[in-house]
Amino acid sequence: MSAAKVKAAVMGATGYAGFELAKLLLRHPRMATPLFLSREQGPATQPLESLYPELTGNESYPLVPFSWDLLKKEGVDVLFLATPHELSRELVPEAMGKGLRIVDLSGAWRLKDPVNRGVYRFEDKDAVLAAELDRTAIYGLPELHRDEIRDAVLVANPGCYATSVIVPLTPLVRSGLVNTGRGVVCDCKSGVSGAGKKPTQKTHFVEAADNFSAYSVFGHRHTGEILEQAGLHADELIFTPHLLPIPRGILSTIYLGLTRPVTPSEIDAVYRESYSGSHWVRIFGPGKLPQIQYSVRTNYCDVGFELAPDGKRLIVVSCLDNLMKGAAGQALQNLNVMFGWSEKEGF
Amino acid sequence: MSAAKVKAAVMGATGYAGFELAKLLLRHPRMATPLFLSREQGPATQPLESLYPELTGNESYPLVPFSWDLLKKEGVDVLFLATPHELSRELVPEAMGKGLRIVDLSGAWRLKDPVNRGVYRFEDKDAVLAAELDRTAIYGLPELHRDEIRDAVLVANPGCYATSVIVPLTPLVRSGLVNTGRGVVCDCKSGVSGAGKKPTQKTHFVEAADNFSAYSVFGHRHTGEILEQAGLHADELIFTPHLLPIPRGILSTIYLGLTRPVTPSEIDAVYRESYSGSHWVRIFGPGKLPQIQYSVRTNYCDVGFELAPDGKRLIVVSCLDNLMKGAAGQALQNLNVMFGWSEKEGF
Amino acid sequence: MSAAKVKAAVMGATGYAGFELAKLLLRHPRMATPLFLSREQGPATQPLESLYPELTGNESYPLVPFSWDLLKKEGVDVLFLATPHELSRELVPEAMGKGLRIVDLSGAWRLKDPVNRGVYRFEDKDAVLAAELDRTAIYGLPELHRDEIRDAVLVANPGCYATSVIVPLTPLVRSGLVNTGRGVVCDCKSGVSGAGKKPTQKTHFVEAADNFSAYSVFGHRHTGEILEQAGLHADELIFTPHLLPIPRGILSTIYLGLTRPVTPSEIDAVYRESYSGSHWVRIFGPGKLPQIQYSVRTNYCDVGFELAPDGKRLIVVSCLDNLMKGAAGQALQNLNVMFGWSEKEGF
Amino acid sequence: MSAAKVKAAVMGATGYAGFELAKLLLRHPRMATPLFLSREQGPATQPLESLYPELTGNESYPLVPFSWDLLKKEGVDVLFLATPHELSRELVPEAMGKGLRIVDLSGAWRLKDPVNRGVYRFEDKDAVLAAELDRTAIYGLPELHRDEIRDAVLVANPGCYATSVIVPLTPLVRSGLVNTGRGVVCDCKSGVSGAGKKPTQKTHFVEAADNFSAYSVFGHRHTGEILEQAGLHADELIFTPHLLPIPRGILSTIYLGLTRPVTPSEIDAVYRESYSGSHWVRIFGPGKLPQIQYSVRTNYCDVGFELAPDGKRLIVVSCLDNLMKGAAGQALQNLNVMFGWSEKEGF
Repeated sequence: MSAAKVKAAVMGATGYAGFELAKLLLRHPRMATPLFLSREQGPATQPLESLYPELTGNESYPLVPFSWDLLKKEGVDVLFLATPHELSRELVPEAMGKGLRIVDLSGAWRLKDPVNRGVYRFEDKDAVLAAELDRTAIYGLPELHRDEIRDAVLVANPGCYATSVIVPLTPLVRSGLVNTGRGVVCDCKSGVSGAGKKPTQKTHFVEAADNFSAYSVFGHRHTGEILEQAGLHADELIFTPHLLPIPRGILSTIYLGLTRPVTPSEIDAVYRESYSGSHWVRIFGPGKLPQIQYSVRTNYCDVGFELAPDGKRLIVVSCLDNLMKGAAGQALQNLNVMFGWSEKEGF
Repeated sequence: MSAAKVKAAVMGATGYAGFELAKLLLRHPRMATPLFLSREQGPATQPLESLYPELTGNESYPLVPFSWDLLKKEGVDVLFLATPHELSRELVPEAMGKGLRIVDLSGAWRLKDPVNRGVYRFEDKDAVLAAELDRTAIYGLPELHRDEIRDAVLVANPGCYATSVIVPLTPLVRSGLVNTGRGVVCDCKSGVSGAGKKPTQKTHFVEAADNFSAYSVFGHRHTGEILEQAGLHADELIFTPHLLPIPRGILSTIYLGLTRPVTPSEIDAVYRESYSGSHWVRIFGPGKLPQIQYSVRTNYCDVGFELAPDGKRLIVVSCLDNLMKGAAGQALQNLNVMFGWSEKEGF
Repeated sequence: MSAAKVKAAVMGATGYAGFELAKLLLRHPRMATPLFLSREQGPATQPLESLYPELTGNESYPLVPFSWDLLKKEGVDVLFLATPHELSRELVPEAMGKGLRIVDLSGAWRLKDPVNRGVYRFEDKDAVLAAELDRTAIYGLPELHRDEIRDAVLVANPGCYATSVIVPLTPLVRSGLVNTGRGVVCDCKSGVSGAGKKPTQKTHFVEAADNFSAYSVFGHRHTGEILEQAGLHADELIFTPHLLPIPRGILSTIYLGLTRPVTPSEIDAVYRESYSGSHWVRIFGPGKLPQIQYSVRTNYCDVGFELAPDGKRLIVVSCLDNLMKGAAGQALQNLNVMFGWSEKEGF
Repeated sequence: MSAAKVKAAVMGATGYAGFELAKLLLRHPRMATPLFLSREQGPATQPLESLYPELTGNESYPLVPFSWDLLKKEGVDVLFLATPHELSRELVPEAMGKGLRIVDLSGAWRLKDPVNRGVYRFEDKDAVLAAELDRTAIYGLPELHRDEIRDAVLVANPGCYATSVIVPLTPLVRSGLVNTGRGVVCDCKSGVSGAGKKPTQKTHFVEAADNFSAYSVFGHRHTGEILEQAGLHADELIFTPHLLPIPRGILSTIYLGLTRPVTPSEIDAVYRESYSGSHWVRIFGPGKLPQIQYSVRTNYCDVGFELAPDGKRLIVVSCLDNLMKGAAGQALQNLNVMFGWSEKEGF
């Protein structure tokens, strides 16, 4: 006997992450056909398949104007926000009284430390409620917060770069092996879809192809998430994003000094213990490093490493798909945890 | 003893073709440093090197506000317009009374037949003068119109696709070997810079990379140029553009039925005779076809062909760089012809 | 109650098409874990996941040395050959006596006309048996041969280019609307995986990237398949392959003269009738053309068209993924038909 | 009155770096047409233009079998070796007695420290002579060794990655501002042509496109060059190469801890002083970082930087074209220095 299906609504299904999520939800065996919401009022906007003709087929996927009444009428259980953080910051407080569970893909609710939140310059209507939500929102990285996500009302889906760093870095920091005072260097590279669907000079094919560049040096918004989740002080971390001439995928190269000489099997053991029950993290054996093509279009975060001959310096390489484990896939994984399903469901 | 240098002004040096032209003019040994014009009034717009940091160095290349007085004061001999066709249509009639020679890279003055011009929907202030200019403008393909370009006042620089078709097609049509009634099919593919520097959804890296598509089927603006220069009727030609996931380069595959069986050496002879004095057209020998990478970043138009075993069907493949022989390079070649220099000068 | 699972063996799972097939079979709900065969004798070759680390996980996929005894012992029901055509030509006659059903992805058994087969220069040990198999092999395009595939013992899986032309072309030829005497031009473009996994100068990144080229002009091996399936004479078809700088995907632009002026809805009706029950062919409505990115990584063959204003010339554009509908996906679709399952099963 | 032209011979002009050098030498106004040498004996190998059809034109560039007699007969002044290091190690000692000046593009003669040379496992016929040459060879980075190159007989042209690190790093180390004990991290990314022209699985388009990976972690051969030129101990440097999905270009991101808080203008001053007379190094102003597309196809090494808000951590970004400043361009620059010409000559 099958349980009733769960109903989701998606706000922002026209962006890259939102559309990836839409496709995942449409295939998920425990989900009813989701509601795709638009902020545009009045009659119809274009249906999803005319923006993304890969959906061409017998069915149509209209965007319907957002209203709380509609969500109630349609019996929506869970609301996904793939919206700018300003809009998430506005909608979530309202949503809390409606009995909805929320997975927010923006940066609006990820940060606990007000100093770190400063970079977003939030302007909240109800500062008290917002502060309460800042406190109770759960950072949606199931590998670190599985138990809290299970009962969470508001899940703050992590940033793509942040996931690619937090997954490999946090277990090492917790193990006490990292000489954090020496500084952790995270040299991160992302495909162009990470910059969003809106066309800009930077994402013009002629500018991005055959090119490579660093950006937001000493100033990227994902820095705070990494600090908080990995447990580092601001001056212990350098995180530098770069733009790769590929549509999707992130590779992060992380440089660590260790507190004492170790063997590869010690590092391996730290990872295997930390992620033994975590299907979506793959630890690569000694001498093997992940590449972007191994995890692209999957929900895996792949982790490999190399120790210096002196055993005191470590390089960790992680890879994931910025639209999957870095956004929509992780949101689906969070959904699975929130409803008590297998984390593999729907992939 | 060296002659005085020639002074050029360039309007539209911020676009892809205009910037390519700017770089060529800056290296041309017979040209003074050109004037880069902007339509923006008031004090400074950004200098060229801040838009295109590849120019970074000791010198600065400011954009100066356009005025006829300035052109006069600076002693400008030749004006290059790398502007939208509406603006070329507006500026050229004014320029004619100023004693300037003009090379216009837009589609404004390329077409002789009013029917073909219809696609542009020109709105001329002075229709009589415009008609006069339509008549006297020279189509700036030196391989076909070298003598007229030499003394021309207004040179209409050909379209990129058009050049890639006219060069290989015209000598064959003139030879009488083409069964034009059977229809000439031109399947053309261009890199993304052909779509211009302005970012659009179509030119977004994530949309263009790993993709390929046909567009403007039965309706591209370069059709008229091809018809007029190759001497075909509208129903004898099919020209289909496609978007290649590369920054620059065009390859055109042209399918022809012949009026009688021929040998490869007959076709070869037609080309060798037509282009014997033309440095910038390279005829590839039997069994060899050009590829985009052979001519990219050069001013060559490469031409190769294959005959069907029956000798009655011919496939011609041509390649060029859409920003060079397809735009700025051809403009420089026209400059060389207009001033009596070697066509190779400055390349 | 679920039926017993079907057991497949795959020869050639290390190539691009074979590996794509391996992944599909591993996910197919009605298939047991397939046997991956290697021609190498002796103990172990590398398991599949070490050649393709994207398979990294808890399970291993060893390659086992091929023998007929092994196939029997393992209870193999269906054998997939993703092998060079010479090897398929050698193995299939032997396999026929073993009670195996076969899907061959090579060109070995696709052609009925000895003239067309000439291009492959087959050297058969048992010419009588080979001739018998040439006669009884079914061309594995379900949209055209669904009923025969259902009971087929030997299915010859079509070529990738051939599929991209036969699907859009055959219904039109059969409708009598095509003026075949005028010649059908098929200008086809494929991603680099179509050239196989073996590294060559042509597939070197530095040669293929930023480049585009025509090849095998008037001489590609898929020509015979197109002629036979679409019902054309050799001099009625021109088929020109080109190499696209993308990993996967084919777009074919097909130029047709018509026997009389038609309307778009007439063409649309021909397609809708021909493919009404065919899930994996999508007909794009008037004014919409498929692009490679719409069908890549799916089993769809997308078809769109544009009529000239005179209604007498037609351009059809088709797209598919050369490793899916052009190879492994089509093989899986054939499997589904052979065993009476839904054609969508396992995708 | 013009001086007699200098005659060069190139061994290895068929590889990517060698061919780039061939093209540069063919355009250099002070060089006679170079001799292109082949190790293949007997009559003709293919001429250069059939391997690289972009050279198609009126002239042919035959490869001639190498012999010392031929070099003498042709009056060769300078020999360029774009050969494997084993061959350079064999040829150079022989060449020394012939009065030739040599620019070697391989790693054969770059290293002074026998420990660093260990990675190459050289097997010298005449160990004494080889040791002498190891001592007298000049590391061919003109920005650091201009004076010694002027009179050098044997110039060891630097590695591509090494150049991209040594140029930005050495002035800082020499300034005393770098806390070398904290470790210098060099995260370097190179286009595929750096892996050479020989096709391999790694350089197959389908493997390299849409992908990104780290390799030779803690073990790349250029490490020794960086240590020696920048003046660092082995445990003070981490250098990690990555493979970018672009044909050419290197970007290196270098992470440095400083001995005291500094201002951007202090860093800027270090660079401006070090490279004031060096045309081919461009220092980018504060807030501006180089990108690969700015220097690709030029001989520039571009350098930019960002200081952390605390003024104690520095990120330097450098870019160059691996075939130009990273190989052939630098070789030509060395030629210019060796013969007393402007370093800009021939570019």
